[in-house]
Amino acid sequence: MTTPLLGKSFIGYSRSSGIEPCGNGVQPGTGTQLEPAYCSATPEEVGHAMALAAAAFPVYSSLSGKTRAGFLRAIATEIEGVVEDIVERGQLESALPEARLRGETGRTTGQLRMFASQIEEGSWVDARIERADPDRKPIPKVDLRSMLRPLGPVAVFCASNFPLAFSVAGGDSASALAAGCPVVVIAHASHPGCAEIVANAVIRAARATGMPEGVFSVLYGGGRKVGQAVVKHPVTQAVGFTGSRSGGTALMATANSRSQPIPVYAEMSSVNPVVILPGALARGEEALAEAFFGSLTLGVGQFCTNPGLVFLPGDQGDAFLAKLKSLVEAGTPGMMLNASICKSYADSTAAFAATDGVTTLARSANEAGPGQGAPAVFVVSIGDFLKHESLQGEMFGPATLIVRGSVSEIEAAIPKLEGQLTASIFASPEELAAQPSLVQALQQRAGRLICNGFPTGVEVCNSMVHGGPFPATSDGRSTSVGTMAIFRFCRPVAWQSFPDAALPAELQEANPLGIKRME
Amino acid sequence: MTTPLLGKSFIGYSRSSGIEPCGNGVQPGTGTQLEPAYCSATPEEVGHAMALAAAAFPVYSSLSGKTRAGFLRAIATEIEGVVEDIVERGQLESALPEARLRGETGRTTGQLRMFASQIEEGSWVDARIERADPDRKPIPKVDLRSMLRPLGPVAVFCASNFPLAFSVAGGDSASALAAGCPVVVIAHASHPGCAEIVANAVIRAARATGMPEGVFSVLYGGGRKVGQAVVKHPVTQAVGFTGSRSGGTALMATANSRSQPIPVYAEMSSVNPVVILPGALARGEEALAEAFFGSLTLGVGQFCTNPGLVFLPGDQGDAFLAKLKSLVEAGTPGMMLNASICKSYADSTAAFAATDGVTTLARSANEAGPGQGAPAVFVVSIGDFLKHESLQGEMFGPATLIVRGSVSEIEAAIPKLEGQLTASIFASPEELAAQPSLVQALQQRAGRLICNGFPTGVEVCNSMVHGGPFPATSDGRSTSVGTMAIFRFCRPVAWQSFPDAALPAELQEANPLGIKRME
Repeated sequence: MTTPLLGKSFIGYSRSSGIEPCGNGVQPGTGTQLEPAYCSATPEEVGHAMALAAAAFPVYSSLSGKTRAGFLRAIATEIEGVVEDIVERGQLESALPEARLRGETGRTTGQLRMFASQIEEGSWVDARIERADPDRKPIPKVDLRSMLRPLGPVAVFCASNFPLAFSVAGGDSASALAAGCPVVVIAHASHPGCAEIVANAVIRAARATGMPEGVFSVLYGGGRKVGQAVVKHPVTQAVGFTGSRSGGTALMATANSRSQPIPVYAEMSSVNPVVILPGALARGEEALAEAFFGSLTLGVGQFCTNPGLVFLPGDQGDAFLAKLKSLVEAGTPGMMLNASICKSYADSTAAFAATDGVTTLARSANEAGPGQGAPAVFVVSIGDFLKHESLQGEMFGPATLIVRGSVSEIEAAIPKLEGQLTASIFASPEELAAQPSLVQALQQRAGRLICNGFPTGVEVCNSMVHGGPFPATSDGRSTSVGTMAIFRFCRPVAWQSFPDAALPAELQEANPLGIKRME
Repeated sequence: MTTPLLGKSFIGYSRSSGIEPCGNGVQPGTGTQLEPAYCSATPEEVGHAMALAAAAFPVYSSLSGKTRAGFLRAIATEIEGVVEDIVERGQLESALPEARLRGETGRTTGQLRMFASQIEEGSWVDARIERADPDRKPIPKVDLRSMLRPLGPVAVFCASNFPLAFSVAGGDSASALAAGCPVVVIAHASHPGCAEIVANAVIRAARATGMPEGVFSVLYGGGRKVGQAVVKHPVTQAVGFTGSRSGGTALMATANSRSQPIPVYAEMSSVNPVVILPGALARGEEALAEAFFGSLTLGVGQFCTNPGLVFLPGDQGDAFLAKLKSLVEAGTPGMMLNASICKSYADSTAAFAATDGVTTLARSANEAGPGQGAPAVFVVSIGDFLKHESLQGEMFGPATLIVRGSVSEIEAAIPKLEGQLTASIFASPEELAAQPSLVQALQQRAGRLICNGFPTGVEVCNSMVHGGPFPATSDGRSTSVGTMAIFRFCRPVAWQSFPDAALPAELQEANPLGIKRME
């Protein structure tokens, strides 16, 4: 380990002196406790982290995009320097395989550099210039210039299923820091060691690039106690969260109950409906089943984009189902992220299996060991599906529900679905052209539409929308992946009749940053 | 009257059959009831208006920007055809003078045409194109294209103080319709007749341009009953509101308590702090007092941008205060918009006057008649100001509170202010350069910063930010004025791997609309 793990929170550039234990890292499956023991940040330390963030905000938000980008790039470099530590500890505490941990680390550093490039270039601030017209009748027109400015300190909750890309220095932190907001991270109990390794890397980068203390803190102690205190704290101006619906809605309630309500960006539950039309089956049912099985079982199904709901024409697809059955029965159980997720998976699949009208098409013939989840597929008629609202719920893991009905019944059912991160349609070009209303219905329920593909695999780029109507997220107007994620932590501000020298560089007459502006 | 007033709601293209009275228009001052009596929409009619809006949404949101723009332009033309009716009825029920009503009508039609131009041009959708790269390692890159799409039906509440520009066909309705959202308006009891005149104009325009029924409805019955039912209705996807803090926060609570929470854009209370530095006083205290008095009393002070709080260096500005005193004492009381606003003004000014440490600098020597409000100016030390949170409240009308302290005390007080629509600073260029932290503190509390000018006068343009941190608005990430207002009613949607013909025109490879895109 490059730096020994201490089990203590990061309060700006200091370490916590809290001694109240909040649990060790735990090896999935064996339940073995990993050293060190982690301790909660004390209430005083939470307050101190927030005070440091408040003090850092005016300083940090005034730095140029290029300077903030230097900080983000330094974080990426520091993380690359500890990738072996991450891989070693990550396998122990999350059971994720080495390749996944290396890949996710690469995604994390890639995201940091993507946001760095975005703020180095600078046009993302949406600068708008309206020049004065003193001769305008009946009243003169004033000089008015606007751009996006950061909201203030942001609370970021680490996600159980992405110890890197959606955790300490993941997309929420990277986009908030890029926007100019200090970040206070609440570590997840599933991977406290990875959190500490990455936090050390961020702090080294912050010191090395001369960032104000308080631009970054990482708190242990869990969402219920420390996390709630951070969200309630008047300094906090926005929240980023990836996790369960109950966790996300609890944060929304807390944020709305503040004397000053703040935005919560919670990415919660989605079953990512997949609609398969006859033309897609005609291209080859077995190959489609293989591709679907691959998406369903990727990462033991523990992705928010896992395809948990499939609409299949009622009188077709027998070969698809037969192939899927054989794949699932031969499927290997996989170690899940933690004991709680494993238990939820067992409970939710059991509840689906026991629901009226639901039949179990297949379960893995291989017995799941402790902490493992095995693939499962259930089938229900569209009539029974619509009778049981609980069948819209998520089985977080490698399980799916296949709903059979006519194409017109499927189209009628789509508007009754809850909001989703994604919706996929498998169809021939002719069917797509003939079904614009079906595509439109899917569009109204989701943030990302996929044609002839499965929803797993979330490209980090300018056009990604990893968001969707409630309850997929708390705020369907946003994305948590891709360059648009930065907009979550900003608001527009206008400057009226200011002398050029007193304007931010982005709005000065000579456009010294050379950014694209609306003028 | 071009079309006789019926006193009934507009349920799509039908008129309500409700018979439960919800009040007549009332002439301010005299209390004279104006004909006709207005009747509440029935619960069934509210449901019918929402069902029509839901049915209209997929049709209306699929129309091209050019077609929707034709509808907005037709509304503007229809409103121009009834401007004499508006002026006649508006003077009776709102006591606003003829010139204001003509000006506000022009602003309303101007806004409609501004949004029409925006959606005719089309680039506002923020189209983003990432093309596929099948050869990318380790995994191929998919084709992914995103753009903004409308949220769904929007509830718009009319504002008491803007019977046209923030009411039936005002900025909220115009921006929502421009985005592609059907609109259900809740009329305000202060000007039901103006609402009916404008609603008739909108419905004529909708019919003439072939819009789907349900794209627009206008309901009588008030915010508490009919309005709450609309906000609770599952079809409603966003809310626009301009009014009191209690009204706005009540709508926020309702929206958050839905099984699917929805965004509320409530523009509520702001006292629009004005900071005057010595350099500005040195330019001429009397002229500054005259300009301030003009802003304070414009429209009997009934603007959300009224300057209700002034920070003045403690040992300077005596000539400013003396001149202001003489202007206020000679000031003419003006008829206020309605009896409730008039009573609130009397109550809030009395409460300020009675607060420890507050002295009354001046009140108009001319007695206010029934329904009238007269200018008033109060003075307090910065120490006493900070002791009494109630002094941050709004006196909606031509009254202001002057807070005296040193420049450093003023700077320290700014972060303690609630969120504001605007913040103004009067200073010399040298002072501005010497006080970057004061300007930054003001920026953190407001949506629009004004240099050497007063906040009244809100330009409708690309760079306007008429928004600000809570409680100025419910959602400081937005503006209710200017072209950015359209973003409130949209969310990004991504299309992955779709054949070109199945993509929206904005995202097709050949860019048939010729819009600006990120690619």
